[in-house]
Amino acid sequence: MPKTIKKVGVLTSGGDSPGMNAAIRSVVRTCAYHNIECIGIYRGYQGMIEGDFKEMGPRSVNNIVNKGGTILKSARSTEFRTPEGRKKAHEHLLKAGIDALVVIGGDGTFTGGLIFNTEFNFPVMGIPGTIDNDIFGTSHTLGYDTALNTVVDVIDKIRDTASSHNRLFFVEVMGRDAGHIALNAGIGAGAEEILIPEEDLGLERLLESLQKSKASGKSSSIVVIAEGDKIGKNVFELKDYVEANLPEYDVRVSVLGHMQRGGSPSCFDRVLASRLGVKAVESLLEGKSNYMVGLQSDKVALTPLEQAIKGKTEIDRELLRVSDIMST
Amino acid sequence: MPKTIKKVGVLTSGGDSPGMNAAIRSVVRTCAYHNIECIGIYRGYQGMIEGDFKEMGPRSVNNIVNKGGTILKSARSTEFRTPEGRKKAHEHLLKAGIDALVVIGGDGTFTGGLIFNTEFNFPVMGIPGTIDNDIFGTSHTLGYDTALNTVVDVIDKIRDTASSHNRLFFVEVMGRDAGHIALNAGIGAGAEEILIPEEDLGLERLLESLQKSKASGKSSSIVVIAEGDKIGKNVFELKDYVEANLPEYDVRVSVLGHMQRGGSPSCFDRVLASRLGVKAVESLLEGKSNYMVGLQSDKVALTPLEQAIKGKTEIDRELLRVSDIMST
Amino acid sequence: MPKTIKKVGVLTSGGDSPGMNAAIRSVVRTCAYHNIECIGIYRGYQGMIEGDFKEMGPRSVNNIVNKGGTILKSARSTEFRTPEGRKKAHEHLLKAGIDALVVIGGDGTFTGGLIFNTEFNFPVMGIPGTIDNDIFGTSHTLGYDTALNTVVDVIDKIRDTASSHNRLFFVEVMGRDAGHIALNAGIGAGAEEILIPEEDLGLERLLESLQKSKASGKSSSIVVIAEGDKIGKNVFELKDYVEANLPEYDVRVSVLGHMQRGGSPSCFDRVLASRLGVKAVESLLEGKSNYMVGLQSDKVALTPLEQAIKGKTEIDRELLRVSDIMST
Amino acid sequence: MPKTIKKVGVLTSGGDSPGMNAAIRSVVRTCAYHNIECIGIYRGYQGMIEGDFKEMGPRSVNNIVNKGGTILKSARSTEFRTPEGRKKAHEHLLKAGIDALVVIGGDGTFTGGLIFNTEFNFPVMGIPGTIDNDIFGTSHTLGYDTALNTVVDVIDKIRDTASSHNRLFFVEVMGRDAGHIALNAGIGAGAEEILIPEEDLGLERLLESLQKSKASGKSSSIVVIAEGDKIGKNVFELKDYVEANLPEYDVRVSVLGHMQRGGSPSCFDRVLASRLGVKAVESLLEGKSNYMVGLQSDKVALTPLEQAIKGKTEIDRELLRVSDIMST
Repeated sequence: MPKTIKKVGVLTSGGDSPGMNAAIRSVVRTCAYHNIECIGIYRGYQGMIEGDFKEMGPRSVNNIVNKGGTILKSARSTEFRTPEGRKKAHEHLLKAGIDALVVIGGDGTFTGGLIFNTEFNFPVMGIPGTIDNDIFGTSHTLGYDTALNTVVDVIDKIRDTASSHNRLFFVEVMGRDAGHIALNAGIGAGAEEILIPEEDLGLERLLESLQKSKASGKSSSIVVIAEGDKIGKNVFELKDYVEANLPEYDVRVSVLGHMQRGGSPSCFDRVLASRLGVKAVESLLEGKSNYMVGLQSDKVALTPLEQAIKGKTEIDRELLRVSDIMST
Repeated sequence: MPKTIKKVGVLTSGGDSPGMNAAIRSVVRTCAYHNIECIGIYRGYQGMIEGDFKEMGPRSVNNIVNKGGTILKSARSTEFRTPEGRKKAHEHLLKAGIDALVVIGGDGTFTGGLIFNTEFNFPVMGIPGTIDNDIFGTSHTLGYDTALNTVVDVIDKIRDTASSHNRLFFVEVMGRDAGHIALNAGIGAGAEEILIPEEDLGLERLLESLQKSKASGKSSSIVVIAEGDKIGKNVFELKDYVEANLPEYDVRVSVLGHMQRGGSPSCFDRVLASRLGVKAVESLLEGKSNYMVGLQSDKVALTPLEQAIKGKTEIDRELLRVSDIMST
Repeated sequence: MPKTIKKVGVLTSGGDSPGMNAAIRSVVRTCAYHNIECIGIYRGYQGMIEGDFKEMGPRSVNNIVNKGGTILKSARSTEFRTPEGRKKAHEHLLKAGIDALVVIGGDGTFTGGLIFNTEFNFPVMGIPGTIDNDIFGTSHTLGYDTALNTVVDVIDKIRDTASSHNRLFFVEVMGRDAGHIALNAGIGAGAEEILIPEEDLGLERLLESLQKSKASGKSSSIVVIAEGDKIGKNVFELKDYVEANLPEYDVRVSVLGHMQRGGSPSCFDRVLASRLGVKAVESLLEGKSNYMVGLQSDKVALTPLEQAIKGKTEIDRELLRVSDIMST
Repeated sequence: MPKTIKKVGVLTSGGDSPGMNAAIRSVVRTCAYHNIECIGIYRGYQGMIEGDFKEMGPRSVNNIVNKGGTILKSARSTEFRTPEGRKKAHEHLLKAGIDALVVIGGDGTFTGGLIFNTEFNFPVMGIPGTIDNDIFGTSHTLGYDTALNTVVDVIDKIRDTASSHNRLFFVEVMGRDAGHIALNAGIGAGAEEILIPEEDLGLERLLESLQKSKASGKSSSIVVIAEGDKIGKNVFELKDYVEANLPEYDVRVSVLGHMQRGGSPSCFDRVLASRLGVKAVESLLEGKSNYMVGLQSDKVALTPLEQAIKGKTEIDRELLRVSDIMST
């Protein structure tokens, strides 16, 4: 029989994403709603090792639902990869009377949580927080929808200047090894071509596509490139390659970078964060552990952490075809 | 055996919504991709009656994916409600060689399309375009996601001043008879209480909730009210009622109004519009008619227009509970 | 010889405006830069009466330069209008060792500061914080530039739907008795006509202008109306009047309301706030009192508080002409 | 005695900037207001050489006041640098009956206009359109205010992630040889340090400043670097240098790039564009030539093109001091 949970610790770890604060708020208020205590753990697993804790009541999370970043801060912890580090962390949790953990982050965060659970039989629930949308078991990770809006907003600006000067722009977007951001933001921004790691178009195809685009009367074009793209050239080499082969093109490069991780979360991400936080805490109270709470077919659903880590999210291949048709 | 489609007409009708232009672009380019012609019909069914048509090629829809409103304009047509009106419209379509219609709009738009199909056996496909999300058969209508972001963005601004002055704000949002916008944007904006037509909280409950909120140490509050709310008082009467009963509150009212319908569509709405446009045209080419293309469990799916009109979308009751917990 | 200033109190009072937090930050950090102490006074003069103070160091104002509202909160104080109230306030200041005040707000705030100075010979400097831009002695008040951007952004959205439906919109904006917001945002948003308190166009002229607009082929129009406009009708009566006289128009009304006061300040307002805060504190240190720091011809300049209160800011009449030409 | 102007040509040239469309609109409508014709010249001087002209009436510029980029497109023209090219351009103007030119752009644009005037005694007025604010004779160039807002908005997003991870970010912004964007956006975004070409802080000072910042308890920092900065290292070399000397810092680099040139213009830029367009056309009608219209002490004022080109705009050194105090 599971121990009754009386005090939940919550942390954010790995790259931050918009919606993490809304998730923290949801965890804290769900705890308060059920009359259990909640402890904020600063700087992810590193703060757990150092006992960097703070009690959080419903008023501690006022006015953060709309803030980017994470008020609990995030950090990578090499020490948590050692048994000694985890032991220290466990001792700090015990001392603080924490019974269960909600960890918000991505693959690395969940892996840490899973090992911790295995070693100390400590209840852990995961909330997927990353802009990359590369977590199995959820159609959307926290921050992904916001990042898509940030990216299309920026490309809209770039298009103003591209179209004023009849130029070709290569825009590199985030996504680690996944093309979700590139594919969706590319369609949303009306990109001529989208290069993603999941689909190797080959350099020939890119040249063809750009030539066709010129022939069809388009005066300017945007090509969106996922940072993890495997076309064999980085975005600056790609520019050189295209200019060498298609001298009629004057290529500009824009690497969007870290701005994609910040900003006020979209309504979708705020609502999702609120739902996932409720489910994470209530699942712990029901005695569950080692699950990630996520979204499946618009419903909140649980996935074992192990699957969430090992599983591979696929891109929606229908979107590749839509992108192709849209660049007609 | 269905007649081969060679020329598709596209129109927007009813209240405009962000994403309509992206849907028009998608219909036009999908036609071009399949080497069929596309005709833009201005001002909805009224323009059909008047033969207000324009040929559209893939370059006619350059740089509109990110524009609010509809380049084809929209209008209400009383004439189209008469058999004579529809006859004129049919003649114009025949004369122009149009074989099939894609109609973008809400309930009224689909009803018009369905009657037209019944009378003239004319192929019609519907794309749900309305911010209200009140169409059966799709989890999201075009413009809904954008409207949610617009609303939370505005309420974030209102919260700045509410929180600086320790005030209570009543914010009225759109949604016709449905509470989708109010419920989701209310959660997203961290509303203290959300009043929607689907759930009559009663005035007592509102007062209680506000008293509890004061007692819990909250210094300012936002109440989001759906325009179709049936609490028996409009938002200004509600203000008077609350101030009469809770004199400690200084209530301000904000009616968000038409701004909710405009603005550059979110990435989600642009991608959705692109997907739905492709499916609408390709369904016509496959000989289908009288369907609405929509989104179900993240996949594009068809719903008979008749069902789309008659069916009732339900709010997600899980969200009512989430809202309740979040206002702890 | 003026007493050496060792501790400065800072407060915000009256309606909040974007940039107030940036000004608080500037006052706090300028104090720290000069090695003097700074005390935040909550809820304006009311908090001064109640001794609601908090020490502020340079780290107390981290990450607020971009936040709307005021972290020191604002309130109206009827008690401060009484000699007893002001006496209590003075005692609290003395007890806390505060030597001088920086008050951020509008007319009412400065009047309070001036009376307080007269009664207790207490050094006071004012920073103009209001979106209305109605303070003499500064070309820009804090928050005005941000409010203009908020208003044009919203009217851009309204224009999407106005232009899709060929409609006329009346948009009421803030500004108290001044037409600065209406005039500038009206030009910025491409308004057909702008109604401001400083210039009575008369109802006839409005009708004529709308008729001319229709005749010139404009399909939709926006009329921007200052809340303090003296045309003799409120915006809803105006709608009825126009619809009665110009039946070809279908008028919609949008009252923008309090959202105009919130939001993240524009770069201009943040820089202005930073400059004014430095000047306010350094002027106190130089022994000056009873001045407002403001912007004149792009330079920071001092105006006696008395003049700032009594003086009347004029609208730039060149802009009326520009507006007229732009609606050609 | 000057020839009466009956037909004005307008073009945009050089890098595009937000507000150019609003300026085009203003030129076109001011012409219509004075009952003279207006011709849009595409792709700057290159389009002039090729006779790429289009008549523009007041309705041709509907709904562009809020659009970034330039509907007339922009291009660099090497041919216009030759007497033959300019001769062709002149012939096209004569053939089209164009009497005078309004050229919108920066230094290069004005230089071209001045040479053209000298050779053909052709009336020319300039409107300063560039985000860099590096034109003598105007306190603000078109697009500068918008670019500042774009930059602070992006740095706000970067700060979310910087502050979540306690990181140092180097953000490179545009501005050619001028530090206006860096200095103002740096203050607006709360940058720790700002590197601009006009002021060589030296590398030592940067290290000191970062050390002081760490010591003062700041957990994250932003350094804003103008692209024209002359510190002797590009932004990536600077990162390496700082990490080598201050190993406690983990530096990230973000080069904002072309997005700074796009986007919907701020209210300020729209109003400024409207004012400058009126003045440019009316000055031509008064027989003036070879001036740039600009803003001086909030008033529209003329500066001889020759001075506008040769003069040097200085940064406001008060702002350097403000920046220094703000990073306390």
